[in-house]
Amino acid sequence: MASIPSEPIAISIGDPAGIGPEVLAKCWDNRGMFNLPPFVAIGDPRSVGAVWDGPIMIIDDPRETDSAFDSGLPLIQLMSAEEDVPGHPSVAGAHCSLDSLEIAVGLARSGSAAAVVTGPVAKEQLYAIGFAHPGQTEFVAERCGVSSGNVAMMLAGPTLRTVPATTHLPLTEVVGALTSVLIESRGRAVLRGLQRSFGIAEPRLAVAGLNPHSGEGGTLGREEIEVIEPAIAALAAEGWRITGPHPADTLFHASARANYDAALCMYHDQALIPIKALHFEDAVNITLGLPIIRTAPDHGTAFDIAGQDRADPRPMAAAIRMAAECASHRAAAA
Amino acid sequence: MASIPSEPIAISIGDPAGIGPEVLAKCWDNRGMFNLPPFVAIGDPRSVGAVWDGPIMIIDDPRETDSAFDSGLPLIQLMSAEEDVPGHPSVAGAHCSLDSLEIAVGLARSGSAAAVVTGPVAKEQLYAIGFAHPGQTEFVAERCGVSSGNVAMMLAGPTLRTVPATTHLPLTEVVGALTSVLIESRGRAVLRGLQRSFGIAEPRLAVAGLNPHSGEGGTLGREEIEVIEPAIAALAAEGWRITGPHPADTLFHASARANYDAALCMYHDQALIPIKALHFEDAVNITLGLPIIRTAPDHGTAFDIAGQDRADPRPMAAAIRMAAECASHRAAAA
Repeated sequence: MASIPSEPIAISIGDPAGIGPEVLAKCWDNRGMFNLPPFVAIGDPRSVGAVWDGPIMIIDDPRETDSAFDSGLPLIQLMSAEEDVPGHPSVAGAHCSLDSLEIAVGLARSGSAAAVVTGPVAKEQLYAIGFAHPGQTEFVAERCGVSSGNVAMMLAGPTLRTVPATTHLPLTEVVGALTSVLIESRGRAVLRGLQRSFGIAEPRLAVAGLNPHSGEGGTLGREEIEVIEPAIAALAAEGWRITGPHPADTLFHASARANYDAALCMYHDQALIPIKALHFEDAVNITLGLPIIRTAPDHGTAFDIAGQDRADPRPMAAAIRMAAECASHRAAAA
Repeated sequence: MASIPSEPIAISIGDPAGIGPEVLAKCWDNRGMFNLPPFVAIGDPRSVGAVWDGPIMIIDDPRETDSAFDSGLPLIQLMSAEEDVPGHPSVAGAHCSLDSLEIAVGLARSGSAAAVVTGPVAKEQLYAIGFAHPGQTEFVAERCGVSSGNVAMMLAGPTLRTVPATTHLPLTEVVGALTSVLIESRGRAVLRGLQRSFGIAEPRLAVAGLNPHSGEGGTLGREEIEVIEPAIAALAAEGWRITGPHPADTLFHASARANYDAALCMYHDQALIPIKALHFEDAVNITLGLPIIRTAPDHGTAFDIAGQDRADPRPMAAAIRMAAECASHRAAAA
């Protein structure tokens, strides 16, 4: 870890019936081994207590995190309308997870937290209570006053960082959604994010093609020529170090990865397949283009294993560590 | 290696101006380290001599391979109409590469060779001389009297085997080409191939979804429900061990890979991204569904580095080894 930020990392626990409480508690248990900076959870202490016997330190102010952290898991208390049962999501739990997210983002916006790490939520439950965003990323972007078109979802592991230009769309809708303007704005968000949050002064971006063999000169599709190349040219004209479009299948082996700091991919699986094949246990989801730092473990609520002491805390630990590293880079640049 | 087949492996050198001659010569040089069985090259000896000073043993009959193999690279001679220069493909070289392929396949069809390994060819040059197949795979299928719809292109590495249901199509044409019948026939070719060529008595096939999160129950695309699931059900009804459709992004990490012997993917990059991310140096292209065994190194002619002693022979060595292993499995089953 570069250095410990002066403010704590604020963590929204996510759905109280999911594995969020468990992985967070395990992170505190193993804070030494995982090399974690002080962090404060925001949520219902009963959801943590239901899956963990360790000490919880209820605090009212994130500034108390440092002094509480050695004695127990610091937690800013939010009481759910009902006590949630692991593995059984409820409307009350969805409200609690949304409030927790709102507070965590607010603490980062006000500067009381160095970064936000968001625990896994259940979208279906959130939609039932009127949540109108495709996911937490878009919610956080709105709370930060940033258009969701100008943020980028990066998946970052120890040897690879990928960003999908389009995210949760049926494959048939990808081509319609891909525009030069979108690729250009995502690319810019990634490049600036590599500078601001990763401390890379002259970041290198590799852009993947859409079609097999990157279209093979137009014979296997023309999107590379008509949509992707103009976006690359526009970013290159601004002085960015950018290459592509590259055939996606030869972009992710070790020697190819050495040539770039992030790969901009055209659709969800093109970005997610390589990162999860290579870094399943420690890939972190980080939102670039925000005034705050936001990371998340790249897994869901896993209701099927909640409350069984089977959840792997390594993705959450990686998300906390990366949030702290990014905060240090931003503080150093400020 | 399981055991050495009684007949040699026949290798078409591929385009004489590409890296085929170099990687083949390097394989002979390092036959001990690479643990290679006797093999015989088919092509123009001048193309090998242009990039290698080692001994070439010209033979007329593949049965001479064994006795010649210790003294030099056994080679069945085909003279190109002109002497090719590494890095400079020609029409004469294309003719020579096609003849070499034809002879190698013929030797396997007649039983004089245990298997065929095909070196890289230049499609553009082949098209110029009237080659009408999308690639060598379809050519070999036709020579074996098998419809190209009933063969499957498998990419096999030490910890992962993938098969794309559709191959060299623009991404927008993938959905139109995907039918339950196609997925079913590809799946059957893969399952039978795992039995016959890999010696797996009860093979397990995992089928990937097409859309992000495998369509999330229909909200992110309906191809999983309408096209993929019926094909899986049909194969399951025949008694095959088959699962899916699985979200593609979580199908390729180590613990997921432990659950299947091959993954059937829906399009080129979905199959090729994970195999090349994990096994770039030793992934082998093997055609399943043929009466003969055919493997190939998964790289092209690389004209840009031909003749510079820079080509990596490991993919060719892996292709030769896998051809021998598959031949042993078939011989054991016969």
